[in-house]
Amino acid sequence: MEIVIRNAVREDMSSVLQLIKELAEFEKEPNAVEVTCNELEDAGFGDQKQFDCFVAEVEKKIVGMALLYFRFSTWKGRTVHLEDLIVTEKMRGKGVGQALYRRVLKFALDQGVKRVNWVVLDWNKPAIEFYERSGATILSNWWQVEMEEPALKAYIGN
Amino acid sequence: MEIVIRNAVREDMSSVLQLIKELAEFEKEPNAVEVTCNELEDAGFGDQKQFDCFVAEVEKKIVGMALLYFRFSTWKGRTVHLEDLIVTEKMRGKGVGQALYRRVLKFALDQGVKRVNWVVLDWNKPAIEFYERSGATILSNWWQVEMEEPALKAYIGN
Repeated sequence: MEIVIRNAVREDMSSVLQLIKELAEFEKEPNAVEVTCNELEDAGFGDQKQFDCFVAEVEKKIVGMALLYFRFSTWKGRTVHLEDLIVTEKMRGKGVGQALYRRVLKFALDQGVKRVNWVVLDWNKPAIEFYERSGATILSNWWQVEMEEPALKAYIGN
Repeated sequence: MEIVIRNAVREDMSSVLQLIKELAEFEKEPNAVEVTCNELEDAGFGDQKQFDCFVAEVEKKIVGMALLYFRFSTWKGRTVHLEDLIVTEKMRGKGVGQALYRRVLKFALDQGVKRVNWVVLDWNKPAIEFYERSGATILSNWWQVEMEEPALKAYIGN
């Protein structure tokens, strides 16, 4: 089975959105995806590029994707953040995820960043073990904090 | 005591770096700060702007700062990430942190993002309580993963 990893183009965004939705359904949050195909096209390929994306193809069909962007660490400077790495369910366990993972890390190295970041769910033991085997460090003592728009509005008031 | 919050300018970066180093020392990692003043100036005010920064002044002296940038959520679209919010030690407990916090959240709201993210150390109970009271949610089940440059090189090979 040949796996081709390439840079995503604007026309891939509908397939990419399908993968995003597939993952949200798997995580039992099918309604959490508010992003539209147009937004992905603008954000990835418009004047103000907000992310880079790779897709994985098998027999010319998109079966996986990785989406990343740059962040800025006040200790390390520019870093790469891997936001999502998704492989469609029936193609898992065939090396597609690992090929995407390698491509992202190679991209980061080529960009000269000192660090790549991402997050993992605490119950996802196979992923945690895979990341650790590859040389990544899990920081379980740094917790995510999020404030959504309604809470923002309530706090800031008018 | 009058607290003035304003947009940082290039000339503030040496004071900002001093605050970054003060926090690193407080966290017992004085050598972790690899960023230089020039890098902050370029990243914040060069051709490719990588962050926004606010500073807090009391009697024309910089006593705090907040540094943030945009991220891209595949569920929510554009979000604001608050990377650092630092108040110099002797000025804590006087409302400087809260004034910076409000300014960051107001900025995010004005930018129309649906979410603001940041991270907190699990032992920092006063911060966690403050964030929760303000309407933020703590996600202790999402762990940070990091791969530093030496591990990247080892994994990708040559």
